[in-house]
Amino acid sequence: MTPLPQPLAGIPWYDVPDYNSPALDELARKLSLHELQIEDCRHPPQRAKLEDHEGYIFAVLKRLRRDPEPGHDLKFADVDVFLCKDTLITVHSGERDLVERTSKRTQECAQPRVDRTFYYLLDCIVDEYIPLLDTLAEESAEIEAAVLEHPDPPMLRRIFALKRRLIEFRRVAGGMRDVVNALMRIEQGLMGDDLDPYLRDVYDHLVRSVDLAETYRDLLTGALDIYLSAVANRTNQVMKVLTVYGTVALPLIIITGYFGMNLHLPLQESPHGLLYANGLMALSTLAVLYYFRRKGWF
Amino acid sequence: MTPLPQPLAGIPWYDVPDYNSPALDELARKLSLHELQIEDCRHPPQRAKLEDHEGYIFAVLKRLRRDPEPGHDLKFADVDVFLCKDTLITVHSGERDLVERTSKRTQECAQPRVDRTFYYLLDCIVDEYIPLLDTLAEESAEIEAAVLEHPDPPMLRRIFALKRRLIEFRRVAGGMRDVVNALMRIEQGLMGDDLDPYLRDVYDHLVRSVDLAETYRDLLTGALDIYLSAVANRTNQVMKVLTVYGTVALPLIIITGYFGMNLHLPLQESPHGLLYANGLMALSTLAVLYYFRRKGWF
Amino acid sequence: MTPLPQPLAGIPWYDVPDYNSPALDELARKLSLHELQIEDCRHPPQRAKLEDHEGYIFAVLKRLRRDPEPGHDLKFADVDVFLCKDTLITVHSGERDLVERTSKRTQECAQPRVDRTFYYLLDCIVDEYIPLLDTLAEESAEIEAAVLEHPDPPMLRRIFALKRRLIEFRRVAGGMRDVVNALMRIEQGLMGDDLDPYLRDVYDHLVRSVDLAETYRDLLTGALDIYLSAVANRTNQVMKVLTVYGTVALPLIIITGYFGMNLHLPLQESPHGLLYANGLMALSTLAVLYYFRRKGWF
Amino acid sequence: MTPLPQPLAGIPWYDVPDYNSPALDELARKLSLHELQIEDCRHPPQRAKLEDHEGYIFAVLKRLRRDPEPGHDLKFADVDVFLCKDTLITVHSGERDLVERTSKRTQECAQPRVDRTFYYLLDCIVDEYIPLLDTLAEESAEIEAAVLEHPDPPMLRRIFALKRRLIEFRRVAGGMRDVVNALMRIEQGLMGDDLDPYLRDVYDHLVRSVDLAETYRDLLTGALDIYLSAVANRTNQVMKVLTVYGTVALPLIIITGYFGMNLHLPLQESPHGLLYANGLMALSTLAVLYYFRRKGWF
Amino acid sequence: MTPLPQPLAGIPWYDVPDYNSPALDELARKLSLHELQIEDCRHPPQRAKLEDHEGYIFAVLKRLRRDPEPGHDLKFADVDVFLCKDTLITVHSGERDLVERTSKRTQECAQPRVDRTFYYLLDCIVDEYIPLLDTLAEESAEIEAAVLEHPDPPMLRRIFALKRRLIEFRRVAGGMRDVVNALMRIEQGLMGDDLDPYLRDVYDHLVRSVDLAETYRDLLTGALDIYLSAVANRTNQVMKVLTVYGTVALPLIIITGYFGMNLHLPLQESPHGLLYANGLMALSTLAVLYYFRRKGWF
Repeated sequence: MTPLPQPLAGIPWYDVPDYNSPALDELARKLSLHELQIEDCRHPPQRAKLEDHEGYIFAVLKRLRRDPEPGHDLKFADVDVFLCKDTLITVHSGERDLVERTSKRTQECAQPRVDRTFYYLLDCIVDEYIPLLDTLAEESAEIEAAVLEHPDPPMLRRIFALKRRLIEFRRVAGGMRDVVNALMRIEQGLMGDDLDPYLRDVYDHLVRSVDLAETYRDLLTGALDIYLSAVANRTNQVMKVLTVYGTVALPLIIITGYFGMNLHLPLQESPHGLLYANGLMALSTLAVLYYFRRKGWF
Repeated sequence: MTPLPQPLAGIPWYDVPDYNSPALDELARKLSLHELQIEDCRHPPQRAKLEDHEGYIFAVLKRLRRDPEPGHDLKFADVDVFLCKDTLITVHSGERDLVERTSKRTQECAQPRVDRTFYYLLDCIVDEYIPLLDTLAEESAEIEAAVLEHPDPPMLRRIFALKRRLIEFRRVAGGMRDVVNALMRIEQGLMGDDLDPYLRDVYDHLVRSVDLAETYRDLLTGALDIYLSAVANRTNQVMKVLTVYGTVALPLIIITGYFGMNLHLPLQESPHGLLYANGLMALSTLAVLYYFRRKGWF
Repeated sequence: MTPLPQPLAGIPWYDVPDYNSPALDELARKLSLHELQIEDCRHPPQRAKLEDHEGYIFAVLKRLRRDPEPGHDLKFADVDVFLCKDTLITVHSGERDLVERTSKRTQECAQPRVDRTFYYLLDCIVDEYIPLLDTLAEESAEIEAAVLEHPDPPMLRRIFALKRRLIEFRRVAGGMRDVVNALMRIEQGLMGDDLDPYLRDVYDHLVRSVDLAETYRDLLTGALDIYLSAVANRTNQVMKVLTVYGTVALPLIIITGYFGMNLHLPLQESPHGLLYANGLMALSTLAVLYYFRRKGWF
Repeated sequence: MTPLPQPLAGIPWYDVPDYNSPALDELARKLSLHELQIEDCRHPPQRAKLEDHEGYIFAVLKRLRRDPEPGHDLKFADVDVFLCKDTLITVHSGERDLVERTSKRTQECAQPRVDRTFYYLLDCIVDEYIPLLDTLAEESAEIEAAVLEHPDPPMLRRIFALKRRLIEFRRVAGGMRDVVNALMRIEQGLMGDDLDPYLRDVYDHLVRSVDLAETYRDLLTGALDIYLSAVANRTNQVMKVLTVYGTVALPLIIITGYFGMNLHLPLQESPHGLLYANGLMALSTLAVLYYFRRKGWF
Repeated sequence: MTPLPQPLAGIPWYDVPDYNSPALDELARKLSLHELQIEDCRHPPQRAKLEDHEGYIFAVLKRLRRDPEPGHDLKFADVDVFLCKDTLITVHSGERDLVERTSKRTQECAQPRVDRTFYYLLDCIVDEYIPLLDTLAEESAEIEAAVLEHPDPPMLRRIFALKRRLIEFRRVAGGMRDVVNALMRIEQGLMGDDLDPYLRDVYDHLVRSVDLAETYRDLLTGALDIYLSAVANRTNQVMKVLTVYGTVALPLIIITGYFGMNLHLPLQESPHGLLYANGLMALSTLAVLYYFRRKGWF
């Protein structure tokens, strides 16, 4: 028989920092946890969800995982929670800092209770979303400011990388929002009534996060439109340069070619022939420039 | 013990013009306001929301803030309201004009009541949305009229700046609409029945505002499409100019080059050689122009 | 004391053809109409809406206003209705023809009743939508047929003008649909049961109108796509012409230039030099044309 | 007094093959059918709909009409049905084949009943949708296969013609689905319970049809995207050809021009001058080709 | 009389591996299965659906069919199930491996029951979706990585083939999700309560699959946008190359042409004439390059 993990923070809270640990089976057997939920713990990643079972609640929470490489895709880690009448079980893969912070807040509390600890855990997880959202907002504003100046492929790559992260974040935050919403409705008396405003507060944060993620994505779509129109505009500019230069040059090429013909040319013998040719060239150039000026091309 | 602020307008309305003031704590203690809501007051910006608590209602309202610099992004300021049975508390960061206008309407009233004052406050806030909407509508109409004439990057920047403001306005006005809707449903007897038509009137204004914001955004998307097609069209025009000029010039260049060859040319010795060459050139030019005319290019 | 307007069509129907008239205040006082609704009457345009008040129904209906200038944006006029137990009040700004038509139908009726007159009014207003929809449908079909032939900026302007009108019509017709729907649900016994199928008929017309407006808009989006791809296609055609002509000309220019060099050329002295040069030019032209033919460019 | 039409198939089923026939008035009078519904019968096309009236059901069904010209827009014909307790009335404009097929199935039935005949009629109408859907699916697949090869205006016209037909079909099939759904809910005991699975079967067919129409439309949008990107790609190809040829030719034109100048050229007198010039030209051509090869352009 | 198929796995489970088999009629007659459902079995493919009939449930499940050719469209096969009180009937077209796996899991069970076997079947079918989703995710990631490097037509074809598969998968998985959802609600006591968490688990898998399919499709739309902007960008690059080369060459062509004229040129007789011409050419080239450098074109 596997020994149970030590309760934390002076309350019956059992933390299983390794989801493969046999201690989880022991706890499941003792508290009659459902085998499918144990399986869910052992096969991350799961979708954020809340299941009410006879006498307890099972929740899969999604925690933001900081990656060493910055600027890459978001990573989320599963934190599984079983909230029974007098027991709290948390299962994860070594999210030590999260457990410590939750444990600290529990110990600072006058009357530690497992439901309150569950709220602390939830609050810690959701609090970590805020700085991420700020980063995404900054990145979005930066891109929007820069895209008109530098409509080049690296900018495009940045736009799509950010879009991918916003889609991912919106998906997970939306799932967490549904979990907290379900928790407020189907708590079965497992959460004290005094926690209701706190849960609503967490819910509010999540609603706002989802809201903002969608707004940023909307704005990002605008950035892509700017990109495309900036490229179209630049092509237009390039074409104009080519057209103006080409159209100025063509009459000159024809005139010089004309006087280069090995035929009997009228001005060939005249000492002022070159003067006339030069005058013709100047005239044709001025005519073309006047034409483009009137078209408003430069 | 901090002294309470003086009641305003002859009714138990306490206005806290600085959300960091200790007077807020004092009021919270006296009226048992929830600590999370006090925290919300102190950490603007919050999402517009309405929370019913035992015996009172807490609302976060979003007021439009005029910025000195015109044409920039919208700014909204939080106005927090606690409506208890016989007391009204408003918390904000120095929105003096709003408080004055509300106070004036309260004093003009025959029987001043806190719920009526709450309505006046709401009405003042929502009334400020109308001129903004008019500005947005004008800007939108202006852009649509101008975009076909000047499809250039500054126009693009104007389109996206307006779109951003419409998204922002729609988000806040939508939140306010939900607040008023919730207020009509869950007032707990805190609002007199005689105010029902007035609340519905405010609700109506907000529904219409959201409606219009969405219509303007729809039309703006059309303006972007005009922009893109105008750029595409202009590129097409530029290409045509280049193509017509280039195609007229090419035969002339070939003909002059032909007669410039240092070979035994048949017309080289003839005094009418140049005449034939000139005729050939005129013919080729006419042929090319006829071809493009038939294609309908000019 | 202002005299009340004369009842129309032999039933207690009071028509106020000027919303600023003091007769409206008199009626409001006599029938205890709510001040906000009187204000709504006096500040058109309002959103189409239906409000049930103690003992009466207040409705804002949107009538299509014919403008002298054809082809411009839609204009709608407010027609406000108060339906009390035994009284009907209509407020508007001089919609004489509408009142006349409604009055005529009421008088043709065996047993004139105010609720039936309300239905007649509604029916007259909605009937005017049909020819407008037909115009929009025709315009939409015309545009779709013409856009592939003439993808030019005036066409674009027509597309967006029509889109704007469809958005506007859809918004108003959708509002009217909701009004009739609300009327069927919350009539408070003010409308006789025998009118139910008639109201459902009007509702049906409005549902169909909204439906069609959305279908036309969908098709119009298709027309814009045609426009954009026709412009892209034309640019492609222009490029091809330039490329084919340019690529045919380049070898000829090089060959004539080659034989124009002031160097010792092998064929310079030969009397058949020109023949060889001509042959070379014909060959190069054929090679280029063969290459483009194989590419399927013409 | 107009004689009633003969009952069909041995049951009280009255078929009115001409909606202007006075027999319809006679039936309406005898069975107290509502005048608005008779009007609906006489003013096709109506939206598909189901109305329950005291004692009977009125349904507008949409039948697919085969047109002689293939490939054109869809045409639907109204088939109006009144299902009373013991009588069935069908009104249409000469849909003889439909009535015959329904009549045949009724006669093959052991115990013919009017509700069952109504189901047969419905089933016949919906069965005709299937081959149309197959045609639309084939056309959609064909277009998707061909669009990458031939991104030309006729293809565009095919795409939009098909899209228009899918929008139309989806709108009508969606209306029919709602009719059958309403029929299952509000049959008022007019349809025998044994028909429930059969109605559900028809409903299922319609749900699937709407589903498929939307899927095809989704795929068609993809085809349009392919079209646009194929055109963009082709323009890119054309540009590359022009650029490569032009850039190869330019140095050659400059070199031949250089040696064509009437100045004292160093190689002018040398018998190997041409050799050097030729070498220079070959070198420049190789350099340009090497440059484009490294850029991966061919 | 056709012999019934042998019951499988020691429980009353009758498997009909050929939907045309007369054994199906025999079973239908014996257990009073509805004829329409038997028809559904015999006319695959049907939409995934669940129908509750008096005393039994009929379900159409969609199984993923592996095709020998990889990379092609998805194929699904119908598996029809009748779950009666004490009997399970499965109908399909030779899905031998699926039946074997289900049978094996049933036999490993301590107390085999038909409802549990139904769950096993469902679970086996849904489990097969996971590797497909993984393949789709990999393909999507691959495309997104490659599209910026190779924005060519084959890439476009890959994007649209994947999009087609995602649309198809989403449609079927969405249907299966609705089936399991309906099963949880309307099981009529045919499924033991102990199976509830298991069904919810399957439901969860399907919700997640639909969710992911939509996310991948969203990202794929991004890949298409990358494609289009990469093509636009490349055209821009090509244009720049042409413009820079052309604009460098044009002055040189004019200068060499100028000195090639058969007129009295000032430097014609000078031995340093060529030097001046060369200097002029170098200068013009440097001027053009400096101009483009300042424009930031290379």
